[in-house]
Amino acid sequence: MAALNNLVVLDLTRVLAGPFSSMLLADMGAEVIKIEMPEIGDDSRSFAPFVNGESAYYMNLNRNKKGMTINLKCKEGKKLFTELVKKADIVLENYRPGTMEKLGLGYEQLKEINPKIIYGCISGFGHYGPYSNRAGYDIIGQAVGGMMSTTGWPDGEPTRCGTAISDVLAGLFATIGVLSAQRKAEITGIGQKVDVALVDSVVAGMEIINQIYLTEGVIPGRNGNRYESIYPYDSFKCSDGNIVIGAGNDKLYHTLCHLMNAPELISDERFTHNPLRIKNCSILKNIIETWSINYTMDELIDMLLDKGIPAGPINTIDRVVSDPHIADSREMFVDMVHPIAGKLKITGNPIKMSDDRYKQPESSPLLGEHNSEILIKYLNLSKSEINDLKSNGVI
Amino acid sequence: MAALNNLVVLDLTRVLAGPFSSMLLADMGAEVIKIEMPEIGDDSRSFAPFVNGESAYYMNLNRNKKGMTINLKCKEGKKLFTELVKKADIVLENYRPGTMEKLGLGYEQLKEINPKIIYGCISGFGHYGPYSNRAGYDIIGQAVGGMMSTTGWPDGEPTRCGTAISDVLAGLFATIGVLSAQRKAEITGIGQKVDVALVDSVVAGMEIINQIYLTEGVIPGRNGNRYESIYPYDSFKCSDGNIVIGAGNDKLYHTLCHLMNAPELISDERFTHNPLRIKNCSILKNIIETWSINYTMDELIDMLLDKGIPAGPINTIDRVVSDPHIADSREMFVDMVHPIAGKLKITGNPIKMSDDRYKQPESSPLLGEHNSEILIKYLNLSKSEINDLKSNGVI
Repeated sequence: MAALNNLVVLDLTRVLAGPFSSMLLADMGAEVIKIEMPEIGDDSRSFAPFVNGESAYYMNLNRNKKGMTINLKCKEGKKLFTELVKKADIVLENYRPGTMEKLGLGYEQLKEINPKIIYGCISGFGHYGPYSNRAGYDIIGQAVGGMMSTTGWPDGEPTRCGTAISDVLAGLFATIGVLSAQRKAEITGIGQKVDVALVDSVVAGMEIINQIYLTEGVIPGRNGNRYESIYPYDSFKCSDGNIVIGAGNDKLYHTLCHLMNAPELISDERFTHNPLRIKNCSILKNIIETWSINYTMDELIDMLLDKGIPAGPINTIDRVVSDPHIADSREMFVDMVHPIAGKLKITGNPIKMSDDRYKQPESSPLLGEHNSEILIKYLNLSKSEINDLKSNGVI
Repeated sequence: MAALNNLVVLDLTRVLAGPFSSMLLADMGAEVIKIEMPEIGDDSRSFAPFVNGESAYYMNLNRNKKGMTINLKCKEGKKLFTELVKKADIVLENYRPGTMEKLGLGYEQLKEINPKIIYGCISGFGHYGPYSNRAGYDIIGQAVGGMMSTTGWPDGEPTRCGTAISDVLAGLFATIGVLSAQRKAEITGIGQKVDVALVDSVVAGMEIINQIYLTEGVIPGRNGNRYESIYPYDSFKCSDGNIVIGAGNDKLYHTLCHLMNAPELISDERFTHNPLRIKNCSILKNIIETWSINYTMDELIDMLLDKGIPAGPINTIDRVVSDPHIADSREMFVDMVHPIAGKLKITGNPIKMSDDRYKQPESSPLLGEHNSEILIKYLNLSKSEINDLKSNGVI
């Protein structure tokens, strides 16, 4: 069986943070029933890039999920949803706080229907506190949580991480929260609400950076790719791109000097020990780059690793996708077959379990694709009842 | 009871990615027994910043854990460890792949001792594949996984995210993996190995960025703080720092123009609809900044939010730590009392559970602090047996 076999998740999430969380649950075998508004669906169904008119954004994040439509604004839709809540383990949503309460479907209402239900919610600022009603997009999470102020270059501007990292972090923390709460509910029979904010998630991810300020009162700034306490531990230019080198101690620095055919740098009084190398890091970076620029990234990585110096290429996405280790051995890009888009590649799951090897993912659902399957399986409705729900716009 | 009450974790992890994972488990009530080398301990015990000579880096990441010392290189130490494995649910480690096998303590060995054990491991490149033996530091994960190539400015260099995000991501994925595997083991009685790599974790976090290349063949580059498909959705200078504004549609753009007292920008033919605003984004950014620079971040945020325009300050860490919403309401910084360091503030947990409010965390352990407690509780050893282990350097 899959790790999360028989775990039933009612998934009201849209776009990124929430669907990322339910995607992980679905990848590990949970029955994730994605509930979308009839006719309209998740906003991300209209997000680029497209394959045969189908959003690859949506298809990637919603693989392995069942697709259902319910109009939660009408009485019959609410009824249908609450009947499903009785059969479910987890409800996930990422609406603005208050939205579910306005629909009469907040945690306080749902726990009356099913005391064991886990209610996981993701929002920009969380479900309580003075900013809880503020809109929270990814960039706002990165900005307010302190990440942007510490990303970038000393003479440059605060910088956004290239991916929607506050959405991803919140999705991950929420997944951990609902799995933990679910373990407790299995024992006690009582569920709870798990409230995860994008901003809090970024704050938690800043870890040591926060600790520097909390302990020393020094405001951490931006220092590019340099690591504050070791040098050389930085990025360096090659002929066709950039690499990182982490020569974390004197021995590795000496090895690097020999590899550069510049043993005189070992005794050079500007670089004899690590604190001096940090002090004179700009000079040392220039010296290393006059050497590194003569090689391609791959040539230099081979040379460095061969000598035992930690290093890696700064891969552009085309290199990541075609890397034999990442793509082939670690199966980080997998094929999915969609009824309209056909075969496409999506990003794989990084949790590699020895007893739960991921098979080819099931396709993301068409809008309402599994309406009948779910309504028969969980609520034992008849075909004519289902047809009525459809003609009345409930599903 | 706490969500992860009675879950016993043997934690061999050091420094960041692994301890971050076991920290989350400990925060949620698992009994995390941190096992360190006698006399030496986790490397991060010597990492700055310090309080009364104690590493705040270590104290933050290891709160709520029990501290034990075992020399895993000696026969008696191995014996002690394997006896504990019989009583545990999860073993966590983040050594270079092969290290535990060399000690005779790899998953294949441990599952013979306890078939239900979950073996979670975090490494740079994972436990299989051609690069599995390469050293994997955070910056290498960010570089190889593709994040650095997409973070930064169009005319600038690939840029590292300001926090050790590949360590954090790997710690989060590993936590999800072991919790899921543990659920399965409760049902089947059979554990498994959960193998999480820093590089894979970054690749998974790149999500839509990967999908653009996989679908369209376009290599995603760096575009600073701009969002490719909407403008204005960017960072802007104020008199005392920077903010982000997300005016995601025409209506919000018009509201912004009125707020700027520049209604002529609404009909300005360079900006009449979103695709034009994207095309002319540099011009529009300059116009907005000639306005925004006249206000402080806080003044401008109040003005924008008052009109319903999504926005947030780019907080430096001092602002994050003193923010009433983040620090007070969301309790993202909590006090801990350490026997030597005294009272210090550390970063809180972002998973807010309605029925499991975090109390003040227990202090991180001194080296070997709970040796007797653990050996009595789990292995029923006598005081003289414990003294012998100590004098023989086993603990």
